[in-house]
Amino acid sequence: MLKSVERWGIFEVSISGPDGGNPFVDYIVSGHFSNEHESVEVSGFYDGNGIYKIRFMPSYEGIYSYETSGNFDGAETKGEFTVIPAKGNNHGPVRVHGKYHFAYEDGTKYYPFGTTCYVWTHQPENIRRQTLETLSKGYFNKIRFCVFPKHYIHNFKDPVTFPYEGTPVDNSELNVDNMYNYSDCHGNSWDFSRFNPAHFQLMEENIAALRDMGIEADIILFHPYDRWGFSQMGRDDCLRYLKYVISRFSAYRNIWWSMANEYDLVKSFTADDWECYANYVYTEDKYNHLRSIHNCVPFYDYTKPWVTHCCMQRQDKYRTTELTEEYRKKYGKPIVWDEIAYEGNIDISWGNISGRLLVRRFWEAVMRGGYAGHGETYEHPDDILWWSHGGALHGESQERIKFLRTILDDVPGYGLMPADGWYDASVGIPESYPDSGYEIHYFGFDRPSFRIFNKEEDKKYHVDIIDTWEMTVTDAGIHSGRFKISLPGKEYMAVRLKRVE
Amino acid sequence: MLKSVERWGIFEVSISGPDGGNPFVDYIVSGHFSNEHESVEVSGFYDGNGIYKIRFMPSYEGIYSYETSGNFDGAETKGEFTVIPAKGNNHGPVRVHGKYHFAYEDGTKYYPFGTTCYVWTHQPENIRRQTLETLSKGYFNKIRFCVFPKHYIHNFKDPVTFPYEGTPVDNSELNVDNMYNYSDCHGNSWDFSRFNPAHFQLMEENIAALRDMGIEADIILFHPYDRWGFSQMGRDDCLRYLKYVISRFSAYRNIWWSMANEYDLVKSFTADDWECYANYVYTEDKYNHLRSIHNCVPFYDYTKPWVTHCCMQRQDKYRTTELTEEYRKKYGKPIVWDEIAYEGNIDISWGNISGRLLVRRFWEAVMRGGYAGHGETYEHPDDILWWSHGGALHGESQERIKFLRTILDDVPGYGLMPADGWYDASVGIPESYPDSGYEIHYFGFDRPSFRIFNKEEDKKYHVDIIDTWEMTVTDAGIHSGRFKISLPGKEYMAVRLKRVE
Repeated sequence: MLKSVERWGIFEVSISGPDGGNPFVDYIVSGHFSNEHESVEVSGFYDGNGIYKIRFMPSYEGIYSYETSGNFDGAETKGEFTVIPAKGNNHGPVRVHGKYHFAYEDGTKYYPFGTTCYVWTHQPENIRRQTLETLSKGYFNKIRFCVFPKHYIHNFKDPVTFPYEGTPVDNSELNVDNMYNYSDCHGNSWDFSRFNPAHFQLMEENIAALRDMGIEADIILFHPYDRWGFSQMGRDDCLRYLKYVISRFSAYRNIWWSMANEYDLVKSFTADDWECYANYVYTEDKYNHLRSIHNCVPFYDYTKPWVTHCCMQRQDKYRTTELTEEYRKKYGKPIVWDEIAYEGNIDISWGNISGRLLVRRFWEAVMRGGYAGHGETYEHPDDILWWSHGGALHGESQERIKFLRTILDDVPGYGLMPADGWYDASVGIPESYPDSGYEIHYFGFDRPSFRIFNKEEDKKYHVDIIDTWEMTVTDAGIHSGRFKISLPGKEYMAVRLKRVE
Repeated sequence: MLKSVERWGIFEVSISGPDGGNPFVDYIVSGHFSNEHESVEVSGFYDGNGIYKIRFMPSYEGIYSYETSGNFDGAETKGEFTVIPAKGNNHGPVRVHGKYHFAYEDGTKYYPFGTTCYVWTHQPENIRRQTLETLSKGYFNKIRFCVFPKHYIHNFKDPVTFPYEGTPVDNSELNVDNMYNYSDCHGNSWDFSRFNPAHFQLMEENIAALRDMGIEADIILFHPYDRWGFSQMGRDDCLRYLKYVISRFSAYRNIWWSMANEYDLVKSFTADDWECYANYVYTEDKYNHLRSIHNCVPFYDYTKPWVTHCCMQRQDKYRTTELTEEYRKKYGKPIVWDEIAYEGNIDISWGNISGRLLVRRFWEAVMRGGYAGHGETYEHPDDILWWSHGGALHGESQERIKFLRTILDDVPGYGLMPADGWYDASVGIPESYPDSGYEIHYFGFDRPSFRIFNKEEDKKYHVDIIDTWEMTVTDAGIHSGRFKISLPGKEYMAVRLKRVE
């Protein structure tokens, strides 16, 4: 009987091979996987202890055959396997749907409600477990995190594993004052041609755990917060790194590629470097996972063909997701605001807004046909901040973000688009069915005590009043023609209309 | 013994004359007032019942002489009077001080903290009394209001007096739906050459009451909210109106001239009209009271020489007073944001923000070296809204605005100017003494739980923590060099530093 794997699951071939020399560069393996619908060639990777692996994510059901090859004895294998239907929450990878939204490959709606825990997989096991437990509560369906360790405020400890063989610089003298002085931190000794499989195995274990919870892993491939030199590698080292990461991770259906966090702060990379690396990912990832790149100040040129969606950090202190419509028009791609300041109380502007303000920014994004990202940065006695380490959440926004997702889930079709409204309301209507008579009017910091609607006399509208902070939906009855809906004169209210006949 | 009047008080000459024909246009009176320092020619006005008046505000102490003249028997009078020192809260008219601030003519600091009650003088006496009682609590030192009655939402009743002789259109059919349809409202019958002195006497009574409380009267000369045709008068009628208003009001030291509210909505006025009328006010007002003009959407060209300061309505929903620095640079004149949305709960965006947000906007203006204006628009069972009618205040912002004034009063010299700070703080330093080591760091919606300051090792700073909402100032001790100030991680906090040696 053939081995079976779910559609969009992982079929892995494991081959014993040489462990002498440098197996990461001296030996190569690859696999060819095919059935009547697809024919895919993927690179394998060395996983340590003389084991080489080739991973494949099948996109169709039925019998597949495969052949592997390489430059060592035993690399040539072949066989067949059966791909069975996807089960449970397996809907395939997330794709861009239409122009501005997302859906799983099987057509199921996917609205990104992400969070950020930059180096949660680099933390001790108890914190990792706690992070997964927190994530299991369903607040988020995407999480951004880094492959490389992070040197930054609140995060000066060494990671539990490093991505390369070698010895790190002593961290005992490092603190906030030399945050960006990594180029002065000599004493690192790395072999960029020898990966540390344990580092990647740990990431994969967690990518798989996320996948099983229905959470997308938005992998940050490069970032500037560095004292080890990982942000200063040359082009050959970077391409070797990308190949290794792609060959290991790309068969996980829940992978997204974020080329960088704050790409513009990675001072050693040129514009050509970014294009080279992004196009390499585009070419080497056979599954066409979503790709983007995150800015500190200037947006990347999101019109580049390899960019599937815009992952933006806000550029203005006062207008963040309120600018969603403008960027939809400018870029013609899904807008994901993955950094709009975090709920917290640290001494930095991007990390000390209230839960109320963060949730308002989420609603402003969603009403305008975009998406927003969460982060939490509360001071903590053991310096464990969700945004960097994961762990527990201490804020007020996550429950309201989860509630907002239920509101969006109710929208017919795929997502909202901005519609004309009053100056004090952001109005979202279904992108797929703009004329359906389904409308959400979100008032944000405006507090009208009533709203008058002018609708058709011969149509009926079911009206709900939504308290986005208290997370209540109150039936306000069926109305026609000109009608007045009373509101409590509080901030963060919304009114939803559904034409019922 | 000569009659005496305070410096910057009003010396009034009253003359009996003809009451036949049309005394408003058939007869003219004027007065010449002089002492060793000044020589001023002013127009008089007809006050009804055969009485003509000429008013003069002396700017110097000592003996003045005067002569009046006119085109009727008895218009020629002359005499002398004594100008005694100003007393109490009489500091003279408010002038621009330096480039961006204001002071009374005697040099006393004046920081505008204004409110808006568009037609409070047109209300029944009990409401007018209540308005004055509310104003007596010292929340505000400026109030904006109109000469002409107002036709607008929440304000469809006739005023207690009209500015002209005649008969108004029936108002029984008018409501929000024909707010701007005044041109369709025929049935008015006015004689624009015959003023109604009672209307202006009522305004003067209230201008004097404001003056005695130390409140500036920011008089709105034209506005678009009209069902009577007052916003559609031709040039001759407008100039006659301006002359009448100036001859009556300009001797009141607490007058400011606002050429219009939302000038761009007065559809019958051209750009030439506005320049003509503004320059007429500039020429005809012998006391050079402050002059500006208020926009709906496009700002007026505040670089015009007659504009003494910028009176701005915010153009952006999300950034209002945060743009103060930009406009200081652009116009080089004091920035007064007199419409930045009102505290309230009506169904319109400009009238339903929270007291917290309004107070934040005040602080953002002041920290950047500008000023802001209050208004309140809470739904009311008798439809009495502060912003239009006056009456009582129901909100939370006025006490905090009063508190902010105490903070500004403590600043050395005249007002603040913006200084570089962190991204999460608006930092104001004294405009007159920028190097004095006096700094206010306002955090707005950012909530740092501490702030580290880097100051000179050999200087001492007295630090206060200001809770701008709770209105507390907490002594945080004397510090030098690098020091950390703990904060509660709440919104709307500020830290004030004063170098003490």
